[in-house]
Amino acid sequence: MDKESLMLTIAVLGGTGKEGKGLAYRWARAGYRVLIGSRSSEKAVTVASEIIELLEGAPSVVGTTNRDAAEQSNIIVLTVPYAAHRETLESVKDLLKGKLFIDVTVPLVPPKVTKVQLPPAGSAAQEAKEILGEDVQVVAAFQNISHKHLVGEGGVDCDVLVTGTSKEARAEVLKLVEAAGLNGWDAGPIENSVVAEALASVLIYINKQYGSTHAGIKITSVDKK
Amino acid sequence: MDKESLMLTIAVLGGTGKEGKGLAYRWARAGYRVLIGSRSSEKAVTVASEIIELLEGAPSVVGTTNRDAAEQSNIIVLTVPYAAHRETLESVKDLLKGKLFIDVTVPLVPPKVTKVQLPPAGSAAQEAKEILGEDVQVVAAFQNISHKHLVGEGGVDCDVLVTGTSKEARAEVLKLVEAAGLNGWDAGPIENSVVAEALASVLIYINKQYGSTHAGIKITSVDKK
Repeated sequence: MDKESLMLTIAVLGGTGKEGKGLAYRWARAGYRVLIGSRSSEKAVTVASEIIELLEGAPSVVGTTNRDAAEQSNIIVLTVPYAAHRETLESVKDLLKGKLFIDVTVPLVPPKVTKVQLPPAGSAAQEAKEILGEDVQVVAAFQNISHKHLVGEGGVDCDVLVTGTSKEARAEVLKLVEAAGLNGWDAGPIENSVVAEALASVLIYINKQYGSTHAGIKITSVDKK
Repeated sequence: MDKESLMLTIAVLGGTGKEGKGLAYRWARAGYRVLIGSRSSEKAVTVASEIIELLEGAPSVVGTTNRDAAEQSNIIVLTVPYAAHRETLESVKDLLKGKLFIDVTVPLVPPKVTKVQLPPAGSAAQEAKEILGEDVQVVAAFQNISHKHLVGEGGVDCDVLVTGTSKEARAEVLKLVEAAGLNGWDAGPIENSVVAEALASVLIYINKQYGSTHAGIKITSVDKK
């Protein structure tokens, strides 16, 4: 654990879902303090103890309410179904000022989850930006990583496209991508979050079409310096 | 050249641009009859002769006007800058009924080409569908293949996401993807064209950011049967 991760606490709101649990596991493993948030703190406590068990140790993972997790953290990650996106954001909005917010939400509209149906704001992340206002840095990331990849030791054959309201915020999130054992790319301004969010429907379609369960993407023909 | 390609003529409208020329080259090499269309038939004739020269032979590549190319072909491919998208479609609309239309257009809005700025219809391909009406099958493809990859013999390290108004039309286009020496995926309904079109801005951003010139994508963790 380096000096910086010692100082950082990550809240994973909606962290009792599969994706949130997977990300919380990866960051706890990397030495970050992680607060699992949920509408029900009881459920969050259960998931926190499951992660501690997976890690066979006593990392700093705590289950609590969404508001408590948001209040105690510098970095707030949201991993809820799209139907709960606005409501959850409104419920913690006052606690996010001056902080870094990471939106993992994919705006799927059941039952047609294989068809791209983006919200009027352009993407869920742009909607979050509208709700949270200018005082919050909003970054979109991790939408295409299958939760099956996250809870496990193996490498992950899917890149993370990181888009957001400032280059500095994207750089912060790229560190968290790396800490989670994933490969990330600075993919530009928050408007570009459309790609990763819409790609979720395309990957679900490809999974069904070609008999896979965890299709992903890789950026090709670029060498990182 | 198989039986089927003998029967098919492909029009590449705006085929004097780099992307159109590259695709025309690939299909001519595979044995298709290709008509290069342009507003200026003179320019189209020049590009056709350049392709014949590249292929060191006398394949069936002819330069003509956009309208003439569209009229003589079963498959019409559009590769124009977005600014000319609507105008070109309106100019050939009456000749496309009952045919297969492939939109390669990327809705970039200069000067901010690294920022996703999709049209009100959702994507250029959905805009084409609105313009052309129900009698035309509309498929979106090839938006992310660098023209540098196309004119040359090497493999192409970038997949083609094929989206469109019917599964049959997508299957037809997947054959053309293969004929061009590329790897394609049925990526679902025409609404999903958002991904490949928006990805164009993200790839341009990544090229600038990481010092590349032809970033692409690959779908991972799926085996084609």
